[in-house]
Amino acid sequence: MSSLLVVGSLAYDSIKTPAGAVEKTLGGSANYFSLAASLFTQVKVVGVVGEDYSPRDKEILLKRHVDLSGVETVKGKTFHWEGQYEGDMNEAKTLKTELNVFEHFNPKLPASFSKSEFVFLANIAPELQLQVLEQVEFPKFIGMDTMNFWIHSKKDKLKEVLKKVDVILINEGESDLLTSSNNAIQAAPKIAELGPKMVVIKRGEYGFVLYSQEHGYYLLPAMPIPTVIDPTGAGDTFAGGFFGYLAQHNTLPTFELIQKACVVGTLCASFTIQDFGIKALEKMTLDDLKHRLASYKKAVLIEDNLFKI
Amino acid sequence: MSSLLVVGSLAYDSIKTPAGAVEKTLGGSANYFSLAASLFTQVKVVGVVGEDYSPRDKEILLKRHVDLSGVETVKGKTFHWEGQYEGDMNEAKTLKTELNVFEHFNPKLPASFSKSEFVFLANIAPELQLQVLEQVEFPKFIGMDTMNFWIHSKKDKLKEVLKKVDVILINEGESDLLTSSNNAIQAAPKIAELGPKMVVIKRGEYGFVLYSQEHGYYLLPAMPIPTVIDPTGAGDTFAGGFFGYLAQHNTLPTFELIQKACVVGTLCASFTIQDFGIKALEKMTLDDLKHRLASYKKAVLIEDNLFKI
Repeated sequence: MSSLLVVGSLAYDSIKTPAGAVEKTLGGSANYFSLAASLFTQVKVVGVVGEDYSPRDKEILLKRHVDLSGVETVKGKTFHWEGQYEGDMNEAKTLKTELNVFEHFNPKLPASFSKSEFVFLANIAPELQLQVLEQVEFPKFIGMDTMNFWIHSKKDKLKEVLKKVDVILINEGESDLLTSSNNAIQAAPKIAELGPKMVVIKRGEYGFVLYSQEHGYYLLPAMPIPTVIDPTGAGDTFAGGFFGYLAQHNTLPTFELIQKACVVGTLCASFTIQDFGIKALEKMTLDDLKHRLASYKKAVLIEDNLFKI
Repeated sequence: MSSLLVVGSLAYDSIKTPAGAVEKTLGGSANYFSLAASLFTQVKVVGVVGEDYSPRDKEILLKRHVDLSGVETVKGKTFHWEGQYEGDMNEAKTLKTELNVFEHFNPKLPASFSKSEFVFLANIAPELQLQVLEQVEFPKFIGMDTMNFWIHSKKDKLKEVLKKVDVILINEGESDLLTSSNNAIQAAPKIAELGPKMVVIKRGEYGFVLYSQEHGYYLLPAMPIPTVIDPTGAGDTFAGGFFGYLAQHNTLPTFELIQKACVVGTLCASFTIQDFGIKALEKMTLDDLKHRLASYKKAVLIEDNLFKI
């Protein structure tokens, strides 16, 4: 098992979906990521919260042996996001973003974090992603996420980060935007040219596309879930399951291991969307994942002997 | 090998895509369907063409031992469709539809066609689909397609057809429209309640979803094709590969056989989109399909032992 560091947001989210609404529920990329990853390995979180952040919300990660010594509490309020989903629920409409304490986030790693081998830079400003990397001594495997906002406003800094990471996990719409492509199959090779040896494009209900120049494409649909309650955090959960699984294996990830990690990420995300916020993810166990894997394999397996000889 | 009947359009298409443009190239659901299906079984076509329909275009199907004795030539011009693709190419923008001889199409089956066991009703008016069914004596397995236009204008007649078929193959947007759903996973069970025991929703680049009440979901992404030249006919090609494969097996299709047929349909469609019109499909061989199956399986296979015990 290798140490896994994540830098990202700890937040309160207010979410409306066709299934209902929740006010200021626990959210943020680092929380979703850590809940999924901590099923596989020990997670260390770097982030910032306000004075309003509830000790009970910290407790949720502490129970999973997540190291929160890199989470700073500062004067002010925790990052608050308000969003709404309609129709196919593939994309949230942001109603409000209150950065609060996140606005002056200046990630500093505790000494014990600097030896982390696996590092995931969740969706934060590219210069902060770089600042975190500078504080890690010998990273073995680095991943990142990003979003439209940074692609528009900080493309040069973003390209610096892209040169330093082994894998990027990015939404389909954002991968198109980054590379002026029309779909994930076109975008993935263009992203690989920007730096990351491995590219994972998250397609929501349509699953994922993994690509490397050496090994080509690997892709699967999402687990079929008839009733999606709240898609918030599905992408961060995918990243958590993906990175937790890789870190657990304690080797430099091969393409085959990364293929498996994509499946694990897909399975984890399929739980997140079944309830609001982190509710379903918090309850998810390794046994749940094993059972779901069995159903998933049945749903996507190609039988042998399709063509008689 | 069972006999396979298809009723659908024979057309000339004018198509613009980011890769180029073609004028009045051979198209129509029955042509795409037959070219794919004839790799597996003998196909009989019911349709109508105008006096301008080139003997060379008939020759393309005759070379594949397709029985065209149900194709009537009448005074006037062949059905002409003009469309354009942009962006993600998942949907064509129709620029012009000249029904011409198709407007008064009145499908009449030659006596030798009435004993067909497998029947595919491509996208034509629901009352014409019913009219064809009335002329088949003991159909073993019936499939259908439809489109927005009939869902809007002929919903009652469409529901009559739905009650008589074993399988429907339908686009994702159209399945949503038919059932007021937001995605294929929601729509499929609702369609199954309208009649067809098996529902296949075609998702373009995202592949397909197969559903039956008894067996649940089976789904896969499309083959990753980096350069799509022209998506026209991909859905009809899918249907042709699917039905040809089923008819070849000469048994009442099990869910397992239908799963395999969906994979065959996916593989066939992946050729069609690699060139304009029927160009790539015309050249496609069973060997090509076998090779592509090997790449496809590699691209979507889930390794065993994902979770250690």
